[in-house]
Amino acid sequence: MKQEFFNSKIKTKGQDLYEFTDQVIQWIKNNNFKNGILNLSIQHTSASLIVQENADPDVQKDLINYFNKLVPMDEKLYIHSSEGKDDMPAHIKSALTNNQISLSLKDGKLLLGTWQGLYLFEHRLANHNRKVIHHFFGE
Amino acid sequence: MKQEFFNSKIKTKGQDLYEFTDQVIQWIKNNNFKNGILNLSIQHTSASLIVQENADPDVQKDLINYFNKLVPMDEKLYIHSSEGKDDMPAHIKSALTNNQISLSLKDGKLLLGTWQGLYLFEHRLANHNRKVIHHFFGE
Amino acid sequence: MKQEFFNSKIKTKGQDLYEFTDQVIQWIKNNNFKNGILNLSIQHTSASLIVQENADPDVQKDLINYFNKLVPMDEKLYIHSSEGKDDMPAHIKSALTNNQISLSLKDGKLLLGTWQGLYLFEHRLANHNRKVIHHFFGE
Repeated sequence: MKQEFFNSKIKTKGQDLYEFTDQVIQWIKNNNFKNGILNLSIQHTSASLIVQENADPDVQKDLINYFNKLVPMDEKLYIHSSEGKDDMPAHIKSALTNNQISLSLKDGKLLLGTWQGLYLFEHRLANHNRKVIHHFFGE
Repeated sequence: MKQEFFNSKIKTKGQDLYEFTDQVIQWIKNNNFKNGILNLSIQHTSASLIVQENADPDVQKDLINYFNKLVPMDEKLYIHSSEGKDDMPAHIKSALTNNQISLSLKDGKLLLGTWQGLYLFEHRLANHNRKVIHHFFGE
Repeated sequence: MKQEFFNSKIKTKGQDLYEFTDQVIQWIKNNNFKNGILNLSIQHTSASLIVQENADPDVQKDLINYFNKLVPMDEKLYIHSSEGKDDMPAHIKSALTNNQISLSLKDGKLLLGTWQGLYLFEHRLANHNRKVIHHFFGE
C-alpha cells in the first residue's frame, strides 16, 4: 500500500465548469497507480467539485443558469456582502454541491461512467487560482 | 489489506427512491469484510446515491415532491432539452445531491445510524439499469 | 496501515452550525496519525456535515437563513409532518448537503484550506445529541 499527494492548481476565469478529468488520468498513469481510492478535495468554500455529464456542453450552461436562479446574486438578500455580490451565493452553492469526491481506481482505470467528467465548478465572477488536493491511497 | 470490487446493477422503474442497504450488507457478509471503507459510486449523472430515513415511506414521497418543485420539468427553462423534459432536471438533481458515498465498516458492521438507509435516487421517468460500483478497501 | 474509530457525540442546541475542526485535529494529534483518510459520517438524516468558511460568522447566519427560505417549515407542504414542522425540512436539507466527508491527512496535518472549517449543520429546532463517526485509515 502506498500514498501519494499532488497539489493541483486550476486557474479559473469566472463562473463556469472546468473539466479536469484528463489531468487526473494523466497523474494516475504517470504514477502507475493500479487499485485504490483517489480522494480529491478543493481547499476553498466558494467553488465546488462535481461529477457531471461531459457530452453536451449545454448541460453545463443550464447548470450555471439554474444555480444562479436558485441562489441570486443580490446583496440585499445576505448579511455577508463585503466581498462582493457573488461571494455569499458562492458559499451557498458550495454547500449545495461538494467540496470533496472519493473515486475508485481498478486495474489502473478511474471508475467513471461513459458520460461522466470531473469538474471544478467555479462560483466566483473574477479570476481565481484554485487548489485541488489529489490524494491516492492504494497500490 | 485487500480490495474488492463489485458492479451492482439496479433496475429502476421511474422516478423514485430505491433502497439497497440489504444488498450491500449481504455483499459485506459474503466476503467477510471486517474493517475498512466501502466506496459506492453511481456511474450516471441523472440518478444519485443518498443516505436517508428508512422508517416512514412518506419521507421518500416528500423528497421526490420537493425536488420536483425545486427543479421543474419544464423544457422552456433549459437549453438541453433533446433527451426529454426530465433529463436536464435529472442532471441538476444529481448536482444537488451525491454521485458517491464512502461508508465505514467496523467489526463487519456497516456504520449507519438506526434510521439510515442507502438509496439510489432515480430522477428519470422511464425504466433504467443503473450501475453502482461497490469498492471495499480494508481487511 | 492501521484503522481507528471514534464515536464523537456533539450536543446541539437548535438549528445552527457547530464547528468541530479543533476536536478532529486533537484526535489526530492524540493518536499520532500521519498519512491517510479520515472518513466522517453523521448517523442521522436531519443534520449534516459540511466544510464551510470559518472567518466571518455572518456566512453561517446567511447559510441558515437561505436554507430556511429554500425549504420552508410549513407543515402543509409535506405529507410527513408527525414529528414537527422542522422534521421533513431537516431531511430535505440533509439530502441537499452531505452525510459524510472524507478528508486527507498528510504528515500529520488535516488538509483543509486556510478558511475552511468542519461543521455539523443542525437542522432541527430542539436540542439533540448527534453521533459523528470518525474513522481513520492510514499510517
